[in-house]
Amino acid sequence: MTNPVSRFPVTELEDLPDDLRERIGAIAEKSGFTPNIFRALGHRPAELRAFLDYHDALMERDGGLTKAERELVVVATSGANHCTYCIVAHGAILRIRAKDPELSDQVATNPWQVELDERGRAIVDLALALSRDSALFGEGDLAMAREAGLTEDEIWDVGAITALFAMSNRLAHLTALKPNPEFYLMGRQKR
Amino acid sequence: MTNPVSRFPVTELEDLPDDLRERIGAIAEKSGFTPNIFRALGHRPAELRAFLDYHDALMERDGGLTKAERELVVVATSGANHCTYCIVAHGAILRIRAKDPELSDQVATNPWQVELDERGRAIVDLALALSRDSALFGEGDLAMAREAGLTEDEIWDVGAITALFAMSNRLAHLTALKPNPEFYLMGRQKR
Amino acid sequence: MTNPVSRFPVTELEDLPDDLRERIGAIAEKSGFTPNIFRALGHRPAELRAFLDYHDALMERDGGLTKAERELVVVATSGANHCTYCIVAHGAILRIRAKDPELSDQVATNPWQVELDERGRAIVDLALALSRDSALFGEGDLAMAREAGLTEDEIWDVGAITALFAMSNRLAHLTALKPNPEFYLMGRQKR
Amino acid sequence: MTNPVSRFPVTELEDLPDDLRERIGAIAEKSGFTPNIFRALGHRPAELRAFLDYHDALMERDGGLTKAERELVVVATSGANHCTYCIVAHGAILRIRAKDPELSDQVATNPWQVELDERGRAIVDLALALSRDSALFGEGDLAMAREAGLTEDEIWDVGAITALFAMSNRLAHLTALKPNPEFYLMGRQKR
Amino acid sequence: MTNPVSRFPVTELEDLPDDLRERIGAIAEKSGFTPNIFRALGHRPAELRAFLDYHDALMERDGGLTKAERELVVVATSGANHCTYCIVAHGAILRIRAKDPELSDQVATNPWQVELDERGRAIVDLALALSRDSALFGEGDLAMAREAGLTEDEIWDVGAITALFAMSNRLAHLTALKPNPEFYLMGRQKR
Amino acid sequence: MTNPVSRFPVTELEDLPDDLRERIGAIAEKSGFTPNIFRALGHRPAELRAFLDYHDALMERDGGLTKAERELVVVATSGANHCTYCIVAHGAILRIRAKDPELSDQVATNPWQVELDERGRAIVDLALALSRDSALFGEGDLAMAREAGLTEDEIWDVGAITALFAMSNRLAHLTALKPNPEFYLMGRQKR
Repeated sequence: MTNPVSRFPVTELEDLPDDLRERIGAIAEKSGFTPNIFRALGHRPAELRAFLDYHDALMERDGGLTKAERELVVVATSGANHCTYCIVAHGAILRIRAKDPELSDQVATNPWQVELDERGRAIVDLALALSRDSALFGEGDLAMAREAGLTEDEIWDVGAITALFAMSNRLAHLTALKPNPEFYLMGRQKR
Repeated sequence: MTNPVSRFPVTELEDLPDDLRERIGAIAEKSGFTPNIFRALGHRPAELRAFLDYHDALMERDGGLTKAERELVVVATSGANHCTYCIVAHGAILRIRAKDPELSDQVATNPWQVELDERGRAIVDLALALSRDSALFGEGDLAMAREAGLTEDEIWDVGAITALFAMSNRLAHLTALKPNPEFYLMGRQKR
Repeated sequence: MTNPVSRFPVTELEDLPDDLRERIGAIAEKSGFTPNIFRALGHRPAELRAFLDYHDALMERDGGLTKAERELVVVATSGANHCTYCIVAHGAILRIRAKDPELSDQVATNPWQVELDERGRAIVDLALALSRDSALFGEGDLAMAREAGLTEDEIWDVGAITALFAMSNRLAHLTALKPNPEFYLMGRQKR
Repeated sequence: MTNPVSRFPVTELEDLPDDLRERIGAIAEKSGFTPNIFRALGHRPAELRAFLDYHDALMERDGGLTKAERELVVVATSGANHCTYCIVAHGAILRIRAKDPELSDQVATNPWQVELDERGRAIVDLALALSRDSALFGEGDLAMAREAGLTEDEIWDVGAITALFAMSNRLAHLTALKPNPEFYLMGRQKR
Repeated sequence: MTNPVSRFPVTELEDLPDDLRERIGAIAEKSGFTPNIFRALGHRPAELRAFLDYHDALMERDGGLTKAERELVVVATSGANHCTYCIVAHGAILRIRAKDPELSDQVATNPWQVELDERGRAIVDLALALSRDSALFGEGDLAMAREAGLTEDEIWDVGAITALFAMSNRLAHLTALKPNPEFYLMGRQKR
Repeated sequence: MTNPVSRFPVTELEDLPDDLRERIGAIAEKSGFTPNIFRALGHRPAELRAFLDYHDALMERDGGLTKAERELVVVATSGANHCTYCIVAHGAILRIRAKDPELSDQVATNPWQVELDERGRAIVDLALALSRDSALFGEGDLAMAREAGLTEDEIWDVGAITALFAMSNRLAHLTALKPNPEFYLMGRQKR
């Protein structure tokens, strides 16, 4: 039987180095489960550490994009890249952050045409331009983002998150990473 | 006039936080110049720090792929992604590591058909499969790598370096990053 | 404000010709709501009638593919075509038919690599080959389906359902068809 | 030897159910031969019936697009989809309807750049946008059609015919359907 | 009104330099008309001369591929490149050389799947591999051609003719070159 | 061992027919070596002769584009086509003609976004439009070139050079042509 989580060795929380066990443990406690991405990267602690640092630097940053907007970038580019793990896991987070049970499925299945307000559309268009055929990315893409009112700092955020998930999507494809079952249902009920 | 290095603010060595100034300073001393990627990421120290950590975890790792093979992955995928900065900068390093003044240009201009030995070809094919249309990446790609003798650990290295430079390429496209002039000539003369 | 269901006129159940009102009414009663595709096609009764006939001839047919397998073809090809309505609506039906709360999201987000048994993989591969770049469809695609044990009749079913949803996907894109909110949650809880 | 008409069983006129024999018989009498698409679909009478109904609802509809314009949509999208049967058969009909012996070959070989009047160009551009990468189809495509004077009803016709032939093209590719020899020469002489 | 033959100046037979007037004149006499490609290239005599020389060196060469096979390469690659002039003009020649009124339309509309004998299929596959995404062209393509019995000399012919029409197709697209009306009907009647 | 220069027979200078030996000899004397393209085409003297004539008619033409601009077209389109030989050989010539040691690598690795002045950008955009997906080439591409001040004659030059190297790139891919080692270093030092 194939490994149910990753094509490569999986590391459980208790087998991680102290700093990572503490850090991932805090996430697991808050979520109620350990997201599989951490179990799949755990056999390379230095890479997992850098991954977490990069993730937090961009996704937990104060100011600029809202947290829902950061997740919007993740779900849109992961949808365009057909990354099941990132869509299911971050789709759950986007549903919660945006308090909208339908948005994630709409963004993930067709990021190019999902109906968004002007600012949301500009964020997604910028992210898709850099994500997909990045050799063509140019001044015109930046100009459209600026016209929609995005600041230079927000443009960097969109671009850097897009870049980070270009990496994450490929790590998930490399490992055939399975989403935790809990993600599928999170945030689907309006409260 | 447009900024000659990046579309976003550039940070000089002396304006970096202490730990980064020391770390980048050591690189600059060894190279004789500060690679522009560090000047372009410096306005976001937490991101630069994570970038350096991730880079070192994969590119300076002991065992598995040789250093030249790691650079081969970078130049092949950056070539397929049309990333000028990464091709010029890492093309220089590959020339030096592989002690071959022609290899980098051949890999960067056509990674799909450049003549390589069986192991080199397997490394590049694996990297290209994950880099370009990663939704199609599957067991067949891994099987071909294993047949060519790559270990699971080496396969991870190829995949993770490919993923890291999927990110780097997009950061360079986001910033329209200019290669330092020194890179163009490095390693071009056989010694 | 834009129309929340379709870019074109929407027809309510009570405004349909008698035969269609009865037919759609029966579906609505069973589902608890009128699927929006019928409201969007209703202004062209002759087209809606032919659509229903074609749909029933293929999706309600006895023998050959199971009903879950028929929905698998729909979700896989609609996923590859990025059709939000068809993914959300038929994703719900697939969850119910396959009694699997995770399968639809996995198929829709990455039909090329979702883990399926041999027969399921053959069905999806055949459907994707015909759906996406159908000019290349040839004997090799049929040979792989036959090797996996599909009969000629089953191959026709896969091909004809793929063709029907090549049409449906485009009707949904033409109208920017919104999925009914009920679909998002159907079949997500294991019973 | 392979079947000269279809990869699947072919049904002759006399073996069809009564209603279909009568209906196809009338077409055969008018044309002088039975178009192969009907022989190839005949082993699935319910599907053939729905196909005919859908076809007639769109291609024989009064008002809106002219009959030549309807065929223009078919030949343009079938050309983009490389569907030999539909190009040869409907190319013949377009030559006759448009009273132009050269138009079909020009449209089929390069629908993107064939010289047409403004209305014809708008029809073909709309059809190609929906036919090829329909996930990107959006308000901009509709706006251009409206600017060229197409009514909402005409836009629906273009879109629905495009959708119908997205299906037909795939049925022809599934069956490797051969055009009847008579089609090749029809309408090639100016009268 | 736009020029009916080319976007650029057109040169009539009598205005060509002596050597070209004689050479094109002989072709015109044999065909009954001056093919428009010569009128469109005539304003650059040195280029027209080299074009004719290259064309004759490859298309009139003794030995190796038959003349019909040479035209098969032209129609297949021009079909894949959507070049109206080359398809219509060389489609006429292929009909005559192959004594087959249907072959050209079948090859031009879908070169990937048109039914051909083994040798014909090998020729067309080799031509398409080099024509479309030539960066991927490699030893595998040559191996398949050799397995089908093509000699090294014949492989060169296929490759060089493909290359020549990669150029011709682009000249026709540059000029929006119109096919002469005579081409459309040539060779359509079996004799 | 495979042939280090071409997959097909290579002809040395002294084995060429007189006129070609003289002509290539003059180039070899000036360069200090015989460019491999001539050795690879030499086994087909009529084709080599036409190739040289076409090349000289376009690349040595007086008036219109400067010689550096002609090489810019070659390097940009060869970069987009991933043609190692043409990039390395003409990259060398462009460095010399443009007196710029960095330009060629920048153009070859990303012709779509390399920073150029308005005229240079218009030349490269026109060349890329015709080179890559030439079926879409149309009036809009010409209009942009004219707006940037290109004359009709210069537009022809750009288009015809692009067409010529669509051929050359494919000949190099057919033969797996190796660049002469001398090209790699030419023009890399500012004088």
